[in-house]
Amino acid sequence: MRAIVRSFDMRGPEDCSALAAAFADGSLDPRRVVAILGKTEGNGCVNDFTRGYATLAMKLAIAGATGETPADVGERVALVMSGGTEGGLNPHMTVFASADDAAPPRAGIKRLAMGAGFTRDFAPGEIGRQAQIELTARAVRDAMRAAGIADARDVHYVQVKCPLLTAERIASADVVTHDTYESMGYSRGASALGVALALGEIASCPPDGSVCADWNLHSGVASTSAGIELLRNEVMVLGNSDAWSGDLAIAHRVMKDGIDAPALWGALADLGIDGKHQLDDAARAKLVAVLAKAEPPRTGRIRGRRHIMWDDSDINATRHARALVGGTLAGIAGDTRLFVSGGAEHQGPDGGGPVAAIARVS
Amino acid sequence: MRAIVRSFDMRGPEDCSALAAAFADGSLDPRRVVAILGKTEGNGCVNDFTRGYATLAMKLAIAGATGETPADVGERVALVMSGGTEGGLNPHMTVFASADDAAPPRAGIKRLAMGAGFTRDFAPGEIGRQAQIELTARAVRDAMRAAGIADARDVHYVQVKCPLLTAERIASADVVTHDTYESMGYSRGASALGVALALGEIASCPPDGSVCADWNLHSGVASTSAGIELLRNEVMVLGNSDAWSGDLAIAHRVMKDGIDAPALWGALADLGIDGKHQLDDAARAKLVAVLAKAEPPRTGRIRGRRHIMWDDSDINATRHARALVGGTLAGIAGDTRLFVSGGAEHQGPDGGGPVAAIARVS
Amino acid sequence: MRAIVRSFDMRGPEDCSALAAAFADGSLDPRRVVAILGKTEGNGCVNDFTRGYATLAMKLAIAGATGETPADVGERVALVMSGGTEGGLNPHMTVFASADDAAPPRAGIKRLAMGAGFTRDFAPGEIGRQAQIELTARAVRDAMRAAGIADARDVHYVQVKCPLLTAERIASADVVTHDTYESMGYSRGASALGVALALGEIASCPPDGSVCADWNLHSGVASTSAGIELLRNEVMVLGNSDAWSGDLAIAHRVMKDGIDAPALWGALADLGIDGKHQLDDAARAKLVAVLAKAEPPRTGRIRGRRHIMWDDSDINATRHARALVGGTLAGIAGDTRLFVSGGAEHQGPDGGGPVAAIARVS
Amino acid sequence: MRAIVRSFDMRGPEDCSALAAAFADGSLDPRRVVAILGKTEGNGCVNDFTRGYATLAMKLAIAGATGETPADVGERVALVMSGGTEGGLNPHMTVFASADDAAPPRAGIKRLAMGAGFTRDFAPGEIGRQAQIELTARAVRDAMRAAGIADARDVHYVQVKCPLLTAERIASADVVTHDTYESMGYSRGASALGVALALGEIASCPPDGSVCADWNLHSGVASTSAGIELLRNEVMVLGNSDAWSGDLAIAHRVMKDGIDAPALWGALADLGIDGKHQLDDAARAKLVAVLAKAEPPRTGRIRGRRHIMWDDSDINATRHARALVGGTLAGIAGDTRLFVSGGAEHQGPDGGGPVAAIARVS
Repeated sequence: MRAIVRSFDMRGPEDCSALAAAFADGSLDPRRVVAILGKTEGNGCVNDFTRGYATLAMKLAIAGATGETPADVGERVALVMSGGTEGGLNPHMTVFASADDAAPPRAGIKRLAMGAGFTRDFAPGEIGRQAQIELTARAVRDAMRAAGIADARDVHYVQVKCPLLTAERIASADVVTHDTYESMGYSRGASALGVALALGEIASCPPDGSVCADWNLHSGVASTSAGIELLRNEVMVLGNSDAWSGDLAIAHRVMKDGIDAPALWGALADLGIDGKHQLDDAARAKLVAVLAKAEPPRTGRIRGRRHIMWDDSDINATRHARALVGGTLAGIAGDTRLFVSGGAEHQGPDGGGPVAAIARVS
Repeated sequence: MRAIVRSFDMRGPEDCSALAAAFADGSLDPRRVVAILGKTEGNGCVNDFTRGYATLAMKLAIAGATGETPADVGERVALVMSGGTEGGLNPHMTVFASADDAAPPRAGIKRLAMGAGFTRDFAPGEIGRQAQIELTARAVRDAMRAAGIADARDVHYVQVKCPLLTAERIASADVVTHDTYESMGYSRGASALGVALALGEIASCPPDGSVCADWNLHSGVASTSAGIELLRNEVMVLGNSDAWSGDLAIAHRVMKDGIDAPALWGALADLGIDGKHQLDDAARAKLVAVLAKAEPPRTGRIRGRRHIMWDDSDINATRHARALVGGTLAGIAGDTRLFVSGGAEHQGPDGGGPVAAIARVS
Repeated sequence: MRAIVRSFDMRGPEDCSALAAAFADGSLDPRRVVAILGKTEGNGCVNDFTRGYATLAMKLAIAGATGETPADVGERVALVMSGGTEGGLNPHMTVFASADDAAPPRAGIKRLAMGAGFTRDFAPGEIGRQAQIELTARAVRDAMRAAGIADARDVHYVQVKCPLLTAERIASADVVTHDTYESMGYSRGASALGVALALGEIASCPPDGSVCADWNLHSGVASTSAGIELLRNEVMVLGNSDAWSGDLAIAHRVMKDGIDAPALWGALADLGIDGKHQLDDAARAKLVAVLAKAEPPRTGRIRGRRHIMWDDSDINATRHARALVGGTLAGIAGDTRLFVSGGAEHQGPDGGGPVAAIARVS
Repeated sequence: MRAIVRSFDMRGPEDCSALAAAFADGSLDPRRVVAILGKTEGNGCVNDFTRGYATLAMKLAIAGATGETPADVGERVALVMSGGTEGGLNPHMTVFASADDAAPPRAGIKRLAMGAGFTRDFAPGEIGRQAQIELTARAVRDAMRAAGIADARDVHYVQVKCPLLTAERIASADVVTHDTYESMGYSRGASALGVALALGEIASCPPDGSVCADWNLHSGVASTSAGIELLRNEVMVLGNSDAWSGDLAIAHRVMKDGIDAPALWGALADLGIDGKHQLDDAARAKLVAVLAKAEPPRTGRIRGRRHIMWDDSDINATRHARALVGGTLAGIAGDTRLFVSGGAEHQGPDGGGPVAAIARVS
């Protein structure tokens, strides 16, 4: 078995024409799609309906190709839409699928491996609390098992899509916050701590009250994203495993802040890609995907300089942060097709976040 | 005579406390301030009053130190505020001043030189048309003369602050556009063509109708910025001249798009600064200022990938562009204190723009 | 035959649960739905995908109830989503359907009548020009015929949904404007002039160049709305006809500006509803729907007072205008469930627009 | 002594030209200005610098007329800028001044009276807590004494301008919230409870933790507004007193929600102004000022209909609320020159707020 990673431009949140074309020409088997990561062009905040719209369109496109119902597709495939293509970021989808490989895995050679896991739907009162952490950890372990990864050190990226609290959900329960926008942070934070718990980055489930409070706790590989369109957590683990063949591998680093260019250069070096000021054409041809988290520093400063992300009431802080990290990484890659997701609570240190690269390594 | 370039953090548009402190401790002579470039934290668009607010505060601060009236300060000093610190950009001011130097200029050694020029107030109907181009060109030549620069090739950056049309000004005259936001582009574009005309980048003043239409015409060193708070153009020329001494010099490149990292690396190389992935501490200590323009490509694409800057009705296109270029350059410099100004009409090619660096070179 | 008008709250753009419930309980026949007017909670501007999302969800809901394909539903039913619920406006859908009536129409008694019409898809170059005007007029006449309305004076509201130009569509053709946001105005304006042409409000099709230029030309009953999710014009005519029975009727006035409260009071009086400061409960119970257009005055003033709608680069002018008109009308109705649609180019005088009310009149 | 209330259009936050003209022509004595209420065209949220800019400009204008220093003017005059002219609201200032009157007060005839009071600067940790409540109550009592009002029932409007927490202030202390935007609500809420305490609307100072939590506590006449440009609370009391003469009087009602049109009609009736659908010209000529608070209901509903104010991450909830209330009131007054201020925490019931009218009553 080998991993397939394909990216397609989207002309709008609903645009699955390139995906459908790949199904139609046989280059992608719709039944073996494991997950789709999408960058949609909404605001990435509470009222970003582009995520739900893209998710619905993708379900319809896959169902149209396989004969499944859209609901069945949603059960089987992790559809993780992250809103916000600020700066120059390219609205696109990256499809993760598996395929049979003529060549069997070679002993000691680890290649890109993937697996999905899901929690049950959360009650509003569980968001941002222990229930969300523990159930997420269980889903991460399920996903590792599905990916054939036994060692936590072989996990390089764990994407989690999680719910948020709307005004209506808030009114219905005892909840961790009464602010819809804040609830996204609590949900992302608890999900990240679930990843950390599963991978042994933290020793035990922290008590209620730790989420978005005890910033010493964090994961170096979690990437979590909140959306209005779901009620459960959807998990996709990416790593390297000798149970998989093919020519793809993944590596990661933790960006210490939003301008930490050396972090991506480091992950690229692990994959055998070097460069000086910007990737040249040959190096860029090997690069298949870049996945990163963005977060404004709570200190109000980046390397001592004041930034205005938290004080801007016209543009949300996460939108600024995605734009910044998008620019930093695009300057290196020479490409704006980057999956930069906002809201890195408990994902890397304050103001920083994980960055992973997938490349052809044959 | 030598050039002094000093930057100060601003805690808000009105914050001149660091400037006043530099006047008070004698490290900066308020009577020899030639210009201040400020990045303020407004939206950089029509209703950005942070520019006018900062300008008023600076006039009061300088007047308080020199005993001049605020109006006199405004006549003497080019106060060029550019709104918009999207992404992680640092709200700051960079003060350009002159000082006497014990050591006289050395033959054949060119150092950072500066000079200011001004047009008269424009009538609303002159914005974006030949009158603005020609009067700007005249002001650029005045400024070169003031800077002691005879050869246009020694000019590396020309900052112009220019007016815009408000709804009220539009109603009063036959104007080039009835859209306030569009008027900013026409004013910036005509101002840039004025720079190109002065420096011989274009042979003659193009006919009315060329501004924001004939994109073949452009300047490689102009940086123009529109604001509601003035009615004339204010010009500052920066270049190298053997009439000046000191340890500062300036270089520039033209970014071909918003992710053209090699452009800044090239300008840095001209100043003797090299690096691989990001400037190290020693190199960063030499870097004094980075000045750049940002512009979304009219094609709707960056290196073939769709971007959404023009289709976003929540965040103006120039705001996205500043965030993108800010990220690209901050990743190189390891610093967010960058003067990135939006709206690069006729300033470099479509979607690109000039970038200049000032560094200690002794 | 009688008209049925039912409104349902929407918890999000995709929420058709109340619609599906009405289908399920038999109170609404999905096969006899003529049109749905929806107020969705997007920005109502270029990148408002809530309109397309709601449209897709409604197609799926109706198709699920009738066994049609979603595409067939789209051909048969006019789905007119208007984005933007600024101020306190309620996201909702209003369903227009027909039903058989035991009681036949009574001679001389006119009741609410409705009919739909459609143009073919427009090429990008036809938007905002004569082709769009003339084909819209033809679709309006088709819709009047379908509604059983012969006299133009019995037409009180004509809703048109029309396309816009995206950056991609602009690049592909000779188009009326290169600004995506402006293209919405051209499309709405040409569509309104098509209504005026069909109803004899203007004598002949005005020449290219009149749209968004000759403001003397306008319709007093057109309501046009632009969206990214369609390429043709979709028309729904509402009026009174003695071919229809039931207990509903419609009336309208033209608001001269956004605070013209007496206009709605006048339309209500035509329907036998009176009141003083705000409708009382009995009067409100008779009121079934309010449909209005909103537009910022180009003069920059409302009754001599400056407004800032055109100078605000953070919030689009149409968003301010919808909020204003929504407040004016909600204060009268004591209800925020109002269909207030932005962009009233050639729909009523500058800064004003039509307002229609539907009420039970038995 | 009699009260003078004069309003002037502002072409921008810094525009004091009409104010200066009134000083110059002798129609307004700059030494007797007690307070200025301004509606400026910023976002009314954290990064709204139009309030500080207008405040600085007004200080300079008054100082220019009186020979005082700007700082002295700031100590003497309550300059209360409220940001946000959403919908069609008119950017303007309303000047409150006193004048000598030939005719002495008549026994039993109460006329408009005014008085100002100030707290000391607050430490960041005092915002939103008991210290702010108690010191505000003391300032209200000072202001009543200055106004010659002894009976709390004669107080009809108490305007308070209060500080907020920025990211920098938050980092420096133990504060009530770490979110800059939320801090505005805490500061407004505590200030309103200070008014309630001074007027006996609540019996004693509620414990820390009550602000923005115990919504049963509120004032029916407080209007509080938070801004980045000050560190203390500035209070202005408006009421009727038989120590004052002149032809002006004030009345108020509490709006139960943002569409409570009858509330303003009621206050107008108290002042002898009646009307049906909108004030006619004669009635409008008597109306001098309308002062109101706006607030989105925490329930997510207005009279049972969902609104989206809290779920909108592009436009802040207070901006929607000001637009809504502005429309409701403008529809009655036939005028957009209304002082509608956002953020009505503890000012009237949830989703509602006080509305006051000042009119000529002689």
